[in-house]
Amino acid sequence: MSKGKEAKIKIVKINDGTVIDHIRAGHALDVLQILGITGKEGNVVMLAMNIKSSRIETKDIVKIENRVLDAAELAKIGLVAPEATVNEIRESLVVNKTRVQLPDMITDVIECPNQRCVTNQEREPIVPKYEVISKNPIVVKCQYCWTLINEIDIIEQFTE
Amino acid sequence: MSKGKEAKIKIVKINDGTVIDHIRAGHALDVLQILGITGKEGNVVMLAMNIKSSRIETKDIVKIENRVLDAAELAKIGLVAPEATVNEIRESLVVNKTRVQLPDMITDVIECPNQRCVTNQEREPIVPKYEVISKNPIVVKCQYCWTLINEIDIIEQFTE
Repeated sequence: MSKGKEAKIKIVKINDGTVIDHIRAGHALDVLQILGITGKEGNVVMLAMNIKSSRIETKDIVKIENRVLDAAELAKIGLVAPEATVNEIRESLVVNKTRVQLPDMITDVIECPNQRCVTNQEREPIVPKYEVISKNPIVVKCQYCWTLINEIDIIEQFTE
Repeated sequence: MSKGKEAKIKIVKINDGTVIDHIRAGHALDVLQILGITGKEGNVVMLAMNIKSSRIETKDIVKIENRVLDAAELAKIGLVAPEATVNEIRESLVVNKTRVQLPDMITDVIECPNQRCVTNQEREPIVPKYEVISKNPIVVKCQYCWTLINEIDIIEQFTE
């Protein structure tokens, strides 16, 4: 880019991979963290934060070349970016479209931070279960010990 | 984006702000960390990693709306992304262009991790001074105690 030249931004296009759209504004880096993306992997990754959107006021977008998300990854993204849409791209076309949704009850994705909770006792074959008591900001409540877990703690768990 | 539709990517344009171009591939997130950008600030941030470049094989780009970098920030970026060019944008035009450069000697930016180093002694009015002994990967050497510091440790220092 030379001085005086217009600051145009080239289109970064991915032919195969995933586009995560309508991410809650300011949460794109959380999505990268959850997916373990550092940029050192070598594939094209594009991210735009706080851009204007027709559906929600402002939003973030993440595009990842040559990567398809699995069900566990989609569930984790739902917890930091509900309302997100995940588009699978093949040969430049959207071949699959999933709307991430935050369910009312979450099973077996989050661990209870309360070490004394029954879900953390080795002998108990109990699966952690959480009720979503707030969607923005996200707060979930353990159905066994009533411990509340917020967004920041959830992201930390996923990125440990 | 609807199913079957071509996965075009809209241009994210910034009218005022900074474009950091030719960042060493895979280091864009380090640059965001150094600048303290999380996305929660509300301004438009765009990032592309591992894209093709004419000057270097692959590169990263970071665009930040409504932010101009100061000299200290440029020096820090030079340590994780030498070869980067920093373009200041005003009213969609490049008004200032800086080539970040990694000097042979670095003064007063990094702290020595060796607690017994003379530069860490309160009574000594000595400024830390480092020789760059490798540029890729970056390794610097304290001129007082010869401690070696690598890229990862430098980034950690800047983001504490």
